[in-house]
Amino acid sequence: MKTADPSVYLSRLARVREEMTRTQVDALLLSVGHDMPYLMGYHAMPLERLTMLVVPKHGEVTLVIPRLEAPRVHEMSDVFRSIPWNETDDPVQITHDLLGDARTIAVGDQMWSRFLVDLLAFRPQAHYVRSVVVMEALRSRKDDAEVAALRAAGQAADRVAAQLQSGQIPLVGRTEAEVSADLSARLIAEGHQKVNFAIVAAGENAASPHHHPGSRVIQRGEIVLCDFGGTMNGYCSDITRCVFVGEPTQEILDAYEVLMRAQSAGVAAGVLGKPCEHVDAVTRSIIDDAGYGEYFVHRTGHGIGMEEHEDPYMVAGNTTAIMHGHAYSVEPGIYVPGKWGMRLEDIVVATHDGPVSMNNADHNLAVVDC
Amino acid sequence: MKTADPSVYLSRLARVREEMTRTQVDALLLSVGHDMPYLMGYHAMPLERLTMLVVPKHGEVTLVIPRLEAPRVHEMSDVFRSIPWNETDDPVQITHDLLGDARTIAVGDQMWSRFLVDLLAFRPQAHYVRSVVVMEALRSRKDDAEVAALRAAGQAADRVAAQLQSGQIPLVGRTEAEVSADLSARLIAEGHQKVNFAIVAAGENAASPHHHPGSRVIQRGEIVLCDFGGTMNGYCSDITRCVFVGEPTQEILDAYEVLMRAQSAGVAAGVLGKPCEHVDAVTRSIIDDAGYGEYFVHRTGHGIGMEEHEDPYMVAGNTTAIMHGHAYSVEPGIYVPGKWGMRLEDIVVATHDGPVSMNNADHNLAVVDC
Repeated sequence: MKTADPSVYLSRLARVREEMTRTQVDALLLSVGHDMPYLMGYHAMPLERLTMLVVPKHGEVTLVIPRLEAPRVHEMSDVFRSIPWNETDDPVQITHDLLGDARTIAVGDQMWSRFLVDLLAFRPQAHYVRSVVVMEALRSRKDDAEVAALRAAGQAADRVAAQLQSGQIPLVGRTEAEVSADLSARLIAEGHQKVNFAIVAAGENAASPHHHPGSRVIQRGEIVLCDFGGTMNGYCSDITRCVFVGEPTQEILDAYEVLMRAQSAGVAAGVLGKPCEHVDAVTRSIIDDAGYGEYFVHRTGHGIGMEEHEDPYMVAGNTTAIMHGHAYSVEPGIYVPGKWGMRLEDIVVATHDGPVSMNNADHNLAVVDC
Repeated sequence: MKTADPSVYLSRLARVREEMTRTQVDALLLSVGHDMPYLMGYHAMPLERLTMLVVPKHGEVTLVIPRLEAPRVHEMSDVFRSIPWNETDDPVQITHDLLGDARTIAVGDQMWSRFLVDLLAFRPQAHYVRSVVVMEALRSRKDDAEVAALRAAGQAADRVAAQLQSGQIPLVGRTEAEVSADLSARLIAEGHQKVNFAIVAAGENAASPHHHPGSRVIQRGEIVLCDFGGTMNGYCSDITRCVFVGEPTQEILDAYEVLMRAQSAGVAAGVLGKPCEHVDAVTRSIIDDAGYGEYFVHRTGHGIGMEEHEDPYMVAGNTTAIMHGHAYSVEPGIYVPGKWGMRLEDIVVATHDGPVSMNNADHNLAVVDC
């Protein structure tokens, strides 16, 4: 869902101002990351030249931008004005001047620390908080257009998963890196503009949840964990499916039955009003009860939207109530170090009518011979 | 130049400690970015789960890392120890505890601000500075192995430039985005592991120095600016060449002659002991004298190494003396808004024997018909 419609941004900015009042934030500083494009469409380049959106509680929104990047910006004078800076200007000084007498300043999560360090020198007495204080209420609850974008991305990822599960993607004799590149190409072919990751982890490598696909050659008789996603029209997909090459052992089948049950229960647990940690507790208790508790070493899920990982997180300690429009992953896993690992993941949107999955690829452990 | 040799890292850490003493920094905090891999080989994942290398002036170096990512790390117990944290731990609290009574804390440039904001709450009275205070003296001066890596990357980029200049890359009738994808594929084919950017800007789009290649179709009778680079064995390439499709106008030929003269003089100006801003002054004065001064809207260059842009910057105001091993781009440009733009760029290493170019692709405006 890309938009250049100023009315969308103006309405989001109005909501931001409400949140700033509610949370007593005087100014919002956004740079690299997705809060800025959410509010006015432009993505800052992740470079040493600062691009900064300054949103005071009252008054004009200003984009401080390197002069040589100014031509990249789609101007919307109703929404913001631009201040292009020259190579010998100090953009942090400009930002500081724009902040006026702001005391409590909310800072974008992914802004490079060098700019915050420089700002600290200008105003050491300010009170700095994270931008999520202001932005979470907006960004975590997806509107209909955003859910449609997540669904389209999920369906595209499902099609790649189906190709994997039906044996259309050769595995045996190829390296993890080659299969990763293959999955990446298929994500693009199915409509994504960008691949964000394509984890392929075979056998004992699957016990490393964030394994970096490498030169290990896939062999018959092992599990292959594939976790991939990308960005399509501004919104992200993220899916994990495991396949077994050849005949799975009873040990694998037993564990996978538990995993599938836990994941399905986790999806069903996404009920409005329940705390986010409830989803984690549900998947974890099933895996615990089956004796695999020590092998489930991560939280159950993360929010998703313009970013692959964003609020809300499905993790013990997060008591935020699940709300209509929350979009997040449900992805329990079981990882036995040195032996094997498995994970099963869908993206889910919580709604008044119950949780709706954005992924519908087969949840069973596919047995392939390719 | 990838290395898993602990002795390289131990010697770099010893140098870091010297710099910390010299600059009165008590502790160094590194996360996302290249300071951390420079010191111990591991790249933090750019995610919401914090990976942090804590380097106190004295005592053990510690990697605070999400438990699920710990298997990715190549352990070197001589160099650092790891503290894996669990999903319900607070890694900033762990970092804070490791900092002990440190007062002046140097923070990695690209660390996400959310972690610095959280750390500010734990220790509001600390004095925060940028990690470049400590790291620049090390990272900006490349050793022989690093120069060899830059040269290899530069030669690979040169081969792609030669393909462009000799008409092997079709232009007319293709979109900028298609040519960008083609250049990217060729960078990989020539040995890069990763493409960092491939700007293709045709005609009036070339007047936007950081143009994002899009759906504009390239036509006969226009200039095409191509600025591309990637990472090869851990070190970056970055080259800009322009080609003209068909017969260039006198206006273009005149401007290009000035540009080529300015760029060549800028390369030659990289003399040890001169300030970095001297390189900028040399290119700028030639372009100014020829009457194009208002159209040269950016600095002359940036340092390069593990990162595409790093210290030292060739910009007015940077009085840092050029030293043996400094590696940087020399890339003046002339940009006439709405009409055309041109830029010419090489990577140069300053040495006791004078400046050495890592790029040797033809510097003339290639005339192509493809």
